[in-house]
Amino acid sequence: MTTLENSTVTYEQLADIEREFEEVETEILRQQYEMSRPLYEKRQALVSQIPNFWALVMEAAPPEIDEHIQPLDSAVLLSSLMSISVRRFEIEDGGKGDPRSVAIRFEFTENDYFEDKVLEKKFWYRYSDDYTGLVSEPVAIQWKEGKDLTDGLLTAVKKVWDEGEGPQQKKVGKGKKERKPLTAAQQALKEKMESMSLGGVSFFAWFGFVGARISAEESKANLEKEREHARLRSEGKEVPKDEEEEEEEEEEEGEDDEFDDDDDLEIFPEGDDLAQAIVLDLWPDALRYFSTLFIASPSPSSPASS
Amino acid sequence: MTTLENSTVTYEQLADIEREFEEVETEILRQQYEMSRPLYEKRQALVSQIPNFWALVMEAAPPEIDEHIQPLDSAVLLSSLMSISVRRFEIEDGGKGDPRSVAIRFEFTENDYFEDKVLEKKFWYRYSDDYTGLVSEPVAIQWKEGKDLTDGLLTAVKKVWDEGEGPQQKKVGKGKKERKPLTAAQQALKEKMESMSLGGVSFFAWFGFVGARISAEESKANLEKEREHARLRSEGKEVPKDEEEEEEEEEEEGEDDEFDDDDDLEIFPEGDDLAQAIVLDLWPDALRYFSTLFIASPSPSSPASS
Repeated sequence: MTTLENSTVTYEQLADIEREFEEVETEILRQQYEMSRPLYEKRQALVSQIPNFWALVMEAAPPEIDEHIQPLDSAVLLSSLMSISVRRFEIEDGGKGDPRSVAIRFEFTENDYFEDKVLEKKFWYRYSDDYTGLVSEPVAIQWKEGKDLTDGLLTAVKKVWDEGEGPQQKKVGKGKKERKPLTAAQQALKEKMESMSLGGVSFFAWFGFVGARISAEESKANLEKEREHARLRSEGKEVPKDEEEEEEEEEEEGEDDEFDDDDDLEIFPEGDDLAQAIVLDLWPDALRYFSTLFIASPSPSSPASS
Repeated sequence: MTTLENSTVTYEQLADIEREFEEVETEILRQQYEMSRPLYEKRQALVSQIPNFWALVMEAAPPEIDEHIQPLDSAVLLSSLMSISVRRFEIEDGGKGDPRSVAIRFEFTENDYFEDKVLEKKFWYRYSDDYTGLVSEPVAIQWKEGKDLTDGLLTAVKKVWDEGEGPQQKKVGKGKKERKPLTAAQQALKEKMESMSLGGVSFFAWFGFVGARISAEESKANLEKEREHARLRSEGKEVPKDEEEEEEEEEEEGEDDEFDDDDDLEIFPEGDDLAQAIVLDLWPDALRYFSTLFIASPSPSSPASS
């Protein structure tokens, strides 16, 4: 352990306190979810009486969301989006999971673009040595003939996922990583991505976001290891360095490259940020976004009632 | 009441749900404060062992804070800031007040600029017809001879406050407002403000922020009226329009002017935003801000310990 300049405090002590804050925040999120759930249901009952409510909220969304909605996406949403809802699915029905795991559900009417009436994207909060945050799985969309707004990207991602190959890298010996050759599906996805014009990818490509490949088991093991180390430190005991951590220190300089490789086959690299923007901003503040839009351009002919 | 276009839902129904959300959020803030308080104390005990911790956090602060810290302010903070702390004073010791009211306390060592060892600025969460949010009172600083970083601004604001004159406007007859002549202290403050160069006002001028003049009694009455109206609406009853509200509707177009007038004698117009940035961002994330600074430029000679 290294102490901070001119003091006896170590980085690890600061990190351990941050971890304790994180645990309190998680507990608060759990309570907040319980306390506000009836109110979200009441809101949903009310706004379901307002035609196009959710499509209009999406129109009024903050830039982090709005920048991902292309003109055609907007037309689809305005013609057929019925509702958006957010569930913290790991803590529903008394579940003891992570309240930061979220499911974002979109409901649609019959439309010209796809067959699905419901598209739900789930994000799991996971821990690994080099990433902690939301990960996901691709959600397929049943496009109607010639109407695929992602031009095959989403289908290609789903094929790669269904192969179950995981990241393209495997470890070969101490501290070295080697690129595995791409599978046929991976190669097809890569070529599809390279053939797309830059920018302007459909909002619906977000359903293909995967993020870091961390299984529930890996995540659990990592979190337990972290907690155990924090416990040892709090008791003033030495924390064992496992082989992997030593390797990491050796290869620390190459770390950025590795991260880029993982992102290679990601069709919507900011997918986790977009999810957070929906969950933490659009969803709780939907009424406010709706109001700003309405007040900015009120209908001159809106009827007056008591 | 006016219904929204193509629906039977009214603005007031949406506003009432927003108000219910606000009440839940306030309750959560109360619980969060209780749950995280021991951890903030633990953090304080740890960081007090790190020389210059809080001054370094201020150096690493996000732009909303950093933009208000001038080079001389920075020098004062680095040489003498001992600690920053935030209290939600209306809910301490079992208090039933608003958890959004906050006190921000700065502790200093002996320094060349002022005599004070503690500067604490309090903000009260208040309700009025046209503003809801944080208001404050000026905090005087005992500058040493020739060392006033605000060049007399703060002292001038304090003089105006101590006159107890309130806003410069009084109502004269139905819906009309007239400017009262400025008092001598107000005139002196106005001239002082006009004589200052634009921009570059010291961080310490923030201690002079006042904001909307809403007394505790007015705020309580306004909140009760709002709640009563929401209750009547929820029971489908008609809400009485009081005289003042009717006046407001008549003069709605002039509203912006009025707001500008109130701001005329405000030496730190974004004072409430700066308070929120400290309370909601700098204070909870202090360890993270400190770490980013440290990791960005680690000391090459930091000693290794077990």
